[in-house]
Amino acid sequence: MSVLIVGSTALDSIKTPKGENPRLLGGSASHAAVAASFFSPVKLVGVVGDDFPKAYLDLYKRHRIDLEGLQILPGKTFHWSGEYEVNMNHRRTLLTELGVFESFTPTLPKGHQASSFVLLANIAPALQHHVLDQMRRPRFVVADTMDLWLNIALNDLLRLMKRLDAFVLNDSEAHQLTKEDNAFAALKKIHRLGPKYVVIKKGSHGSILSGPKGIFICPAYPLGKVVDPTGAGDAFVGAMMGYLATAKGSIDDHIRRAMVFGSVVASFCCEGFGLQGTTRIKRAQINQRVKELERLTKF
Amino acid sequence: MSVLIVGSTALDSIKTPKGENPRLLGGSASHAAVAASFFSPVKLVGVVGDDFPKAYLDLYKRHRIDLEGLQILPGKTFHWSGEYEVNMNHRRTLLTELGVFESFTPTLPKGHQASSFVLLANIAPALQHHVLDQMRRPRFVVADTMDLWLNIALNDLLRLMKRLDAFVLNDSEAHQLTKEDNAFAALKKIHRLGPKYVVIKKGSHGSILSGPKGIFICPAYPLGKVVDPTGAGDAFVGAMMGYLATAKGSIDDHIRRAMVFGSVVASFCCEGFGLQGTTRIKRAQINQRVKELERLTKF
Repeated sequence: MSVLIVGSTALDSIKTPKGENPRLLGGSASHAAVAASFFSPVKLVGVVGDDFPKAYLDLYKRHRIDLEGLQILPGKTFHWSGEYEVNMNHRRTLLTELGVFESFTPTLPKGHQASSFVLLANIAPALQHHVLDQMRRPRFVVADTMDLWLNIALNDLLRLMKRLDAFVLNDSEAHQLTKEDNAFAALKKIHRLGPKYVVIKKGSHGSILSGPKGIFICPAYPLGKVVDPTGAGDAFVGAMMGYLATAKGSIDDHIRRAMVFGSVVASFCCEGFGLQGTTRIKRAQINQRVKELERLTKF
Repeated sequence: MSVLIVGSTALDSIKTPKGENPRLLGGSASHAAVAASFFSPVKLVGVVGDDFPKAYLDLYKRHRIDLEGLQILPGKTFHWSGEYEVNMNHRRTLLTELGVFESFTPTLPKGHQASSFVLLANIAPALQHHVLDQMRRPRFVVADTMDLWLNIALNDLLRLMKRLDAFVLNDSEAHQLTKEDNAFAALKKIHRLGPKYVVIKKGSHGSILSGPKGIFICPAYPLGKVVDPTGAGDAFVGAMMGYLATAKGSIDDHIRRAMVFGSVVASFCCEGFGLQGTTRIKRAQINQRVKELERLTKF
């Protein structure tokens, strides 16, 4: 089965203590789509300007990503520029040029409306709603978010959460949303807001799932060096959804393994600037690291 | 086989957002000894003043802890008073009264000098050296430490590390020691300082072992509520050593499981003030949580 992924498609200029790279392919939907493409066909919905490099369209195509839902409009592609601190855990935004993204309305091509697996990658909750309004009974809907929407669009987000099967957020967002320092206490509160499955991402500390079958503690793949963590969270949820879309049986049968595959693809993402780490790998290398994680966590 | 545990024995007055408790039994050796006692016989070496409550001596005895090496000297017991912040991750010291601890010299009774398993719990590195100087070829020596010794006794600590089999420290101490933000990069640097096994404790994020068989990612037991984390790190390493001391076969065969047992005893420690969480449990409850952790991490 294919995964429908809606989110931002951007050019990222990223500065880290390890180096600098201008106008890389980025955005939540780009990272999630490439990650998901290792597991299942992907339909991407987003918007770019007419300055969007052909090389990046070719990159999507190499990953067999369906671009029917990618609007190419006159104007500039969304451009984000940011800088990471030495410890890679905090970043600050240097520049945000919305360009054509400012008036983006994600209109789904007819063929996309019956998709079973839907990933609402990080984007304004109002747009995430707009996508769901066009869908016909999807089987599994996941949304990611960011602190910005908790700050400026909390009501939209709270309404969205009632329409989701799964909600993914990082630990600081979970704290912001629930005022709970304890992740397990936060998970309980987030369930009450709607989603049956809640995943809290903790960066290098892994992630936690809370769902009908209880808690799953998902390890992060150990990296001795992080080049650029941008998009790792998107890669995580993208790979998770790609894996789930092709697995036979119930979500509960596969969601733990889906998260481990997400962890591994996120680890590759961190090893290069932008999408460079994710795009240079093959599925066999992903499987290899999943096997390694099995060994590293066995007791 | 028994475990020899040397460290501080103290009265702790602990304030957290959840409450306040004066003059609880505390100290690194107390927490480690009670935790180890669930698995193997323990010989405690430490010092207390003549104000030390008989109830606490009885508590040690209920855990069948050998007190031959516990000096009771005229004067006051080491008294520490501290306060935890809301998120329980940071504490500040309100008061430190060393009392008889100021001139403590850990002299080992004859029968202790041939111990196979030695835990040098948190205490000045010079005293940890002094203990090792009295030992006859121990099989497995582990030391814990704290930021204070990195600040004021770094050279003693660096010399000590060459005499250890295993070194245990928390993530902020690992950063302080190696200047590495990345835990896996830090582990490599710490191995170069001597120890064959290095364990970095990450509180609610679990712990990481690096040893001859590579990395082990050890989960923390999920707690929805932490009452008082004081001594959890000592309980972790105490239980780990207690488990190892009774396991047959090589250290490598058992150290992962030993850490998981350590994680679980540490979780009980966090559920009560001082030693209240650890002393109210039975071995069966520990086994139960270890089984649960197996389920919570399986994929």
